[in-house]
Amino acid sequence: MAGQPVTAVLLLSCRDQKGLVASVSDFLYRHDGNIIHADQHTDPSTRLRPGQAEGVFLQRVEWELDGFAIPRDEIAAAFEPIARRFGMTWSLNFSDYTPRVAVFVSQLPHCMYDLLARWRMGEFRADIPIVISNHDELRAIAQGFGIPFHHLPVSPETRAAQESVALELLEVQKVDVIVLARYMQVLSEGFVARYPNRIINIHHSFLPAFAGARPYHHAHERGVKIIGATAHYVTPALDQGPIIEQDVVRVSHRDAVEDLIRKGRDLEKIVLARAVDLHLRNRIVVYGNKTVVFD
Amino acid sequence: MAGQPVTAVLLLSCRDQKGLVASVSDFLYRHDGNIIHADQHTDPSTRLRPGQAEGVFLQRVEWELDGFAIPRDEIAAAFEPIARRFGMTWSLNFSDYTPRVAVFVSQLPHCMYDLLARWRMGEFRADIPIVISNHDELRAIAQGFGIPFHHLPVSPETRAAQESVALELLEVQKVDVIVLARYMQVLSEGFVARYPNRIINIHHSFLPAFAGARPYHHAHERGVKIIGATAHYVTPALDQGPIIEQDVVRVSHRDAVEDLIRKGRDLEKIVLARAVDLHLRNRIVVYGNKTVVFD
Amino acid sequence: MAGQPVTAVLLLSCRDQKGLVASVSDFLYRHDGNIIHADQHTDPSTRLRPGQAEGVFLQRVEWELDGFAIPRDEIAAAFEPIARRFGMTWSLNFSDYTPRVAVFVSQLPHCMYDLLARWRMGEFRADIPIVISNHDELRAIAQGFGIPFHHLPVSPETRAAQESVALELLEVQKVDVIVLARYMQVLSEGFVARYPNRIINIHHSFLPAFAGARPYHHAHERGVKIIGATAHYVTPALDQGPIIEQDVVRVSHRDAVEDLIRKGRDLEKIVLARAVDLHLRNRIVVYGNKTVVFD
Amino acid sequence: MAGQPVTAVLLLSCRDQKGLVASVSDFLYRHDGNIIHADQHTDPSTRLRPGQAEGVFLQRVEWELDGFAIPRDEIAAAFEPIARRFGMTWSLNFSDYTPRVAVFVSQLPHCMYDLLARWRMGEFRADIPIVISNHDELRAIAQGFGIPFHHLPVSPETRAAQESVALELLEVQKVDVIVLARYMQVLSEGFVARYPNRIINIHHSFLPAFAGARPYHHAHERGVKIIGATAHYVTPALDQGPIIEQDVVRVSHRDAVEDLIRKGRDLEKIVLARAVDLHLRNRIVVYGNKTVVFD
Repeated sequence: MAGQPVTAVLLLSCRDQKGLVASVSDFLYRHDGNIIHADQHTDPSTRLRPGQAEGVFLQRVEWELDGFAIPRDEIAAAFEPIARRFGMTWSLNFSDYTPRVAVFVSQLPHCMYDLLARWRMGEFRADIPIVISNHDELRAIAQGFGIPFHHLPVSPETRAAQESVALELLEVQKVDVIVLARYMQVLSEGFVARYPNRIINIHHSFLPAFAGARPYHHAHERGVKIIGATAHYVTPALDQGPIIEQDVVRVSHRDAVEDLIRKGRDLEKIVLARAVDLHLRNRIVVYGNKTVVFD
Repeated sequence: MAGQPVTAVLLLSCRDQKGLVASVSDFLYRHDGNIIHADQHTDPSTRLRPGQAEGVFLQRVEWELDGFAIPRDEIAAAFEPIARRFGMTWSLNFSDYTPRVAVFVSQLPHCMYDLLARWRMGEFRADIPIVISNHDELRAIAQGFGIPFHHLPVSPETRAAQESVALELLEVQKVDVIVLARYMQVLSEGFVARYPNRIINIHHSFLPAFAGARPYHHAHERGVKIIGATAHYVTPALDQGPIIEQDVVRVSHRDAVEDLIRKGRDLEKIVLARAVDLHLRNRIVVYGNKTVVFD
Repeated sequence: MAGQPVTAVLLLSCRDQKGLVASVSDFLYRHDGNIIHADQHTDPSTRLRPGQAEGVFLQRVEWELDGFAIPRDEIAAAFEPIARRFGMTWSLNFSDYTPRVAVFVSQLPHCMYDLLARWRMGEFRADIPIVISNHDELRAIAQGFGIPFHHLPVSPETRAAQESVALELLEVQKVDVIVLARYMQVLSEGFVARYPNRIINIHHSFLPAFAGARPYHHAHERGVKIIGATAHYVTPALDQGPIIEQDVVRVSHRDAVEDLIRKGRDLEKIVLARAVDLHLRNRIVVYGNKTVVFD
Repeated sequence: MAGQPVTAVLLLSCRDQKGLVASVSDFLYRHDGNIIHADQHTDPSTRLRPGQAEGVFLQRVEWELDGFAIPRDEIAAAFEPIARRFGMTWSLNFSDYTPRVAVFVSQLPHCMYDLLARWRMGEFRADIPIVISNHDELRAIAQGFGIPFHHLPVSPETRAAQESVALELLEVQKVDVIVLARYMQVLSEGFVARYPNRIINIHHSFLPAFAGARPYHHAHERGVKIIGATAHYVTPALDQGPIIEQDVVRVSHRDAVEDLIRKGRDLEKIVLARAVDLHLRNRIVVYGNKTVVFD
């Protein structure tokens, strides 16, 4: 990524209205913005928020900062009137900011291993300052990558207290996004509310099939011919959050549960990594309980 | 298929025991059977029937009749002692028998069109002597292929009577297998019991996700990134029968419900046709609520 | 499709320049255009035409005619100044125009059957006024769909004359696009030049692997684990034209050449149908030897 | 894998003849072998070796050593008469033997990282005693996993000498199989001959498309809609050896070469790992220039 020009990324959503594309593109054009990616999506059948009229507009625009007539710290203020006029929910991100990621794990290492190796190889534009686990088994792996590992065992009695500890650690580390890399604990509603659409989970099934525990066992029992994995944002409803990415692999009667688990591991790590990468590159907008992935 | 040698196909299942493969292969070898396909499957974790011990053995063997020392109409009797010794459930089929297929449809023509075109082109080794529908819309298509079309409208009051009419038609036509090509009526338990593992349905979702009505609408609402279709044998429990074949296609936020329906049509017809083809070529054995597909 | 509003579709390509998106969206906004789809693509590494500078911009915009301030037959003239200013190659299409399709076949019916059934079911927005074949075998199928069938057998000596006959038939029928549905003759450069990017072929391999004749035999010989099919626009270089769509299916050592052919048939018809559908819905722009598919 | 019973695996190939299955299954049955996997394949259209008659038979049988009447070190001798009678090429392997793997790399770490992490997590039944590279960049990663790293830079002048050094290292380490994890040097014919069907390479394209250098660049230029990766055994002919496994991923015009490389990395590591796993579990038999994968 070295040598790539610094860009600004605008992600926005609002009620669909005439003049949206024209206003945004005109804003960039008037200030000499060199657009390198622009994509928009209109969903006529959906509400952005409960109670609102149907018809949603979502857009991603990315342009080079170099040559743009507005200094980077004044762009937000300059765009504000347009956003207000259309009632936009929006965010502005710069490609030279390095997001900070916390990885939560339990005992299965494959997703964490894959994420940390990608990070080490420079595949992700991110820092990973912290790994948190309710078990101690994976400490050595995290530390082998030079990342502080925090063991926060959780029981029904200690959950609230341990979540507070975790939240403090996350704040100290200025964490932007949390990745649950086969973390087998349910997070409380309060915890989730602190990181809305910023906690990414990997579920080891093709959701909504086989939500909940032991999906490979259920898939084997049902005799499906294809298994899947699903990366989604975490919401208070278990395995019900907005889906970011899914993938599948073919199986047959020759595959025992152990084979499903083995084949599923590869799906899980690939699907989770794709979702994390999309999030880090500001490619995702959530609306209702869905995502738009501007790929 | 012209010019291919006539073969016998043995499909069998029983409790797993030592000597099974040796006994069957010895039986064929001693009588000069030229095996052209043999495959077996052992599932140590499953029962063949409720109450039975775990551990299931299933096998498919296909050999040429030409040169086989036992005349075709004496093979079953000659094999019977082996079958009895191991407690096998088994069937013997000959490749020059042409199975008779009934197609059930409602208003959507794509699966029926595809099946009838394949049949006309000789892709299926089958006769299709009858199409039955609870609507009259597709009469012209069926008749265009020269196939008698029976309109049997169904209401809660008339269902029992109409099923009786259908059963009679099927018997007169000596139908071996029924294909529900987007037939939107639920068949009664009594009807299903008459054709166990011989009614093939196509469900327009990746089961067990989105069982029941309007799966594309539910998939769109849930925001899945992949949709699917599932061909299965019909059992009394709706959308719960043994899965024969599944396939999927990637979708995105750009796809409206109408696009899912459009993309799904292609999945439905391909998946259904594959399942019918596998059934007609005696490639499937059902055990428990699963299938073994010897492909 | 009944009841859908009539739309205009603008497809354009030019050298990448600042102000492109702004100018087009401003044009539509000023005249009260209700955009229902807009997508653009910038390829910094490619030339639109040989000799030109690198950097290509391509766009598709679709908006409702109802409420648009410019009458439909004046839109082109109104847009012309913008097109001239940026040096655009562009086309304007209306969704209530029904494109006219000619189908070319040889002896294998599956692709033609699938296309005609889709057309009959209303899946395609198209008329199919003519089928042309170098063999006579498929006459009955075409006529069963009520489509005139022309038998134009081709030998090295008669090719030029027969192509002239075909071109006349196509002109009489005002054909917009030609679909080669497993048509096994190579068209002359002169013929192809008459329908640039308007002849769609299906090749029964995953191009560029196994270009030329007998791809399934070569795939079987090579021992590949996946086979494919490719729909592309025809250019004078055999199997080298811009790729529109590809798909694949997994195979194994258990698949003989006949099985590859059987599995491949389903790929071929699905991939060809997708390509035709994309073309008919004005979703494709060709640049260099590639396509942008605005899906 | 702890607690799993020790098994013997017989892999064999020969000319197709009557009595093959019966003889092998009878051999196991007479000595109380508890078969846990048996699969065979007949390819009527292929020669096992040039000059030989067509028709090949290949088989894999796996049975538990516990309870088998022949002591493990006498099984080979006991089976020898059957093998001689049918002219079999065969090998006998025991599941408690741990194969020894050498990893060859150049500068791209993702495949090596993935292999070593899987090994560390116990996904592979293997030892990895050595990493060899023609560059020095990946030394730290290998050593981080506790594996000796040997830097053997190669130039046209030094290739022969360095290959000799490598061969010595491999012999000292009693290496069974060599994995080229994006190793960018061509091995000499003499080197390859020392490890026939025991060198596994990952090629970053869907072979036979884009053999040779820079396949992602060529794929981008050609405008394909799907890219792939291929794991194969190395033979003297570059990128021409027997294919073990392939997989693909969909791409679009939105993907630049860099995106193909990024998406391809995931394919490469998954496909290579699957191939290595299949080899280590004695699931592959090579015949002609193809593989049978008994999965």
